Amino acid sequence: MKTDVCDLLGIEFPLFAFSHCRDVVAAVTNAGGFGVLGAVAYTPRRLEEELAWIDRETGGRPYGVDVLVPAKIDASAREGGDPLAAIPREHWEFLVRLFEKYGVPVPDLAGENAARAARSGARGVTGAGATELIDVSLSHRIGLIASALGTPPPIMVEKAKAAGVPVAALVGTVEHARRQVAAGVDLIVAQGGEAGGHTGEISTMVLVPQVVDAVAPVPVLAAGGIASGRQVAAALALGASGVWTGSVWLTTEEAETPQTVKQKMLQATARDTVRSRSRTGKPARQLVSAWTEEWEGPDSPGSLPMPLQMIVAEAAMRHLSKHAESGNEGAQQLVNYFVGQCVGMMNTIKPAKQVVYDMVEEFADSMERLSALSSAGE
Amino acid sequence: MKTDVCDLLGIEFPLFAFSHCRDVVAAVTNAGGFGVLGAVAYTPRRLEEELAWIDRETGGRPYGVDVLVPAKIDASAREGGDPLAAIPREHWEFLVRLFEKYGVPVPDLAGENAARAARSGARGVTGAGATELIDVSLSHRIGLIASALGTPPPIMVEKAKAAGVPVAALVGTVEHARRQVAAGVDLIVAQGGEAGGHTGEISTMVLVPQVVDAVAPVPVLAAGGIASGRQVAAALALGASGVWTGSVWLTTEEAETPQTVKQKMLQATARDTVRSRSRTGKPARQLVSAWTEEWEGPDSPGSLPMPLQMIVAEAAMRHLSKHAESGNEGAQQLVNYFVGQCVGMMNTIKPAKQVVYDMVEEFADSMERLSALSSAGE
Repeated sequence: MKTDVCDLLGIEFPLFAFSHCRDVVAAVTNAGGFGVLGAVAYTPRRLEEELAWIDRETGGRPYGVDVLVPAKIDASAREGGDPLAAIPREHWEFLVRLFEKYGVPVPDLAGENAARAARSGARGVTGAGATELIDVSLSHRIGLIASALGTPPPIMVEKAKAAGVPVAALVGTVEHARRQVAAGVDLIVAQGGEAGGHTGEISTMVLVPQVVDAVAPVPVLAAGGIASGRQVAAALALGASGVWTGSVWLTTEEAETPQTVKQKMLQATARDTVRSRSRTGKPARQLVSAWTEEWEGPDSPGSLPMPLQMIVAEAAMRHLSKHAESGNEGAQQLVNYFVGQCVGMMNTIKPAKQVVYDMVEEFADSMERLSALSSAGE
Repeated sequence: MKTDVCDLLGIEFPLFAFSHCRDVVAAVTNAGGFGVLGAVAYTPRRLEEELAWIDRETGGRPYGVDVLVPAKIDASAREGGDPLAAIPREHWEFLVRLFEKYGVPVPDLAGENAARAARSGARGVTGAGATELIDVSLSHRIGLIASALGTPPPIMVEKAKAAGVPVAALVGTVEHARRQVAAGVDLIVAQGGEAGGHTGEISTMVLVPQVVDAVAPVPVLAAGGIASGRQVAAALALGASGVWTGSVWLTTEEAETPQTVKQKMLQATARDTVRSRSRTGKPARQLVSAWTEEWEGPDSPGSLPMPLQMIVAEAAMRHLSKHAESGNEGAQQLVNYFVGQCVGMMNTIKPAKQVVYDMVEEFADSMERLSALSSAGE
């Protein structure tokens, strides 16, 4: 199996694996796919360490980095502003009531330590913060830099072109795809509404062929709902040059997903996800949990714009994950994570390498089955 | 191209076309696909006439009938009840305010003529009404009888088996698929959330392979988001034995879709649909219009259970369509119809036969492209 992106990026099988975990990125790249590290939560120094580690582990095989530069963020998070000061008191008070209701010890979420973590966590989604991450990424031998949300800023495209690194961008509509190509993007990731994380509402089946037609000859990867070889074959049938996957890596051996959340994912069906603004301020698909339900409830103050909601939610989730891991039942009910509808197909923990091999093998079987069907009618 | 359902039903290409319009059903069947007439809105006498016409036009080629027997309907619509009496006054009053707001002449919706039409329209979704439609259908040489909503009642399965007619049923989850097979269904239609009409939320890409695995060796058709040959190829790659389509026929020459609605569909993008309870009481994907928005608005009394909401909505839509066709702008803003996200791909009016030929041709091209990609890696 060779498509145009295999040639563009020097890979054997057009399977892209987005993960925040360096072990997954390295394992997929070493198995013949293309690992992409999600960099948004890292400080520049930490990102430098992670990429140096991946460089060593993959020995020159290609991998990529994904940054998140939202087109619209709350004014307070722009240069010089203090996002923490812009968070209304009632949102912290809601968290306190939530923790009390579920029997989770109440921390000082707005205190000094928490504030430092929050400011640092929000920095990656500001222009200056993202630029630092881009600079660190391009100082390594990466094969691709991706923008996970909205059109990449001109500075990102310029820097990548100067470094000879192709730019990818995620889109959920045909109009966005056209805009991205006009902005200089080399590879479009058309992501359907069934995907985990930030998504629109148009499904992969409907979105991919329309994006392919709109941006040809720019290659398109299909994302959303892809966790098996049959789905890879379907994506290529739709005209995609490869697939971009994320959810399926969350239940691999290597993934740093908290144990409680991993267990929830193994047990979840395709019905157990929801598009909710409760974690980032923008609609993002995630596991249904008491968290998503309470933010929709009558007591909820409503979600804040990005990155303010992200600061509130990440502060809460760090705390909840810790208590969930040590057995607090209320915290276990509340914790969740971004995941797509294919969570219903994630039923066993496997090494990331095995996931790649299984997907390649099922893909080959699907192609054989299709070819047999096709010739049966001749 | 031959799959197991081609053998089961004696067809050349596993393309199923659901339509309320007999001309579409006959055209698709005559072009080598399989037309399925949606019978719910017909009286038994009218259905008899339609099927006799299709029999003559198709000369023994196979076609099917689709009935809608909801598992849960409002008690007032069961035998002996008068559904009209169960509709709260405030729902009729909301319609009056809506018509006034949009400058549409206000009819006597709850008057005697309207009441007769409403009672007759609701009859098809009651047990007794659906049974009459099933009897009429089975008195013709149909090749398939389908249940569009929920598990078919035992009487439907028994009568169909006695007549030697396979039974199909639409499902939106794996659990429902298992239940349908247990109830004796011969062919499962796995319908993703991007489909028009009554749908769940799980996308076609995610749903189909899971349903295929859950009910094997029972054959599965993929539905939702399928309007082109690439999407047919993708459905087969997912493991489906064929495709069930609906939306794509609404903008064919033969379709009886009101002109205003047809024009809206030709102009709509994939973003212009919404799952709403406003037409039937159950979530059904349809064009976004002032109608769907007003039922979500602050003034809305909320939707009623099926079939009460259906009675209210159909009474209003009959009236609105008439005024929309004669140029009333408010009525044109309000009218809509059930359609899936692939409405974004429906941009020209074509004969139904041409849609079949185009789909078969694009399918063949896709298979050739896949086969070339596949061998490039060897």
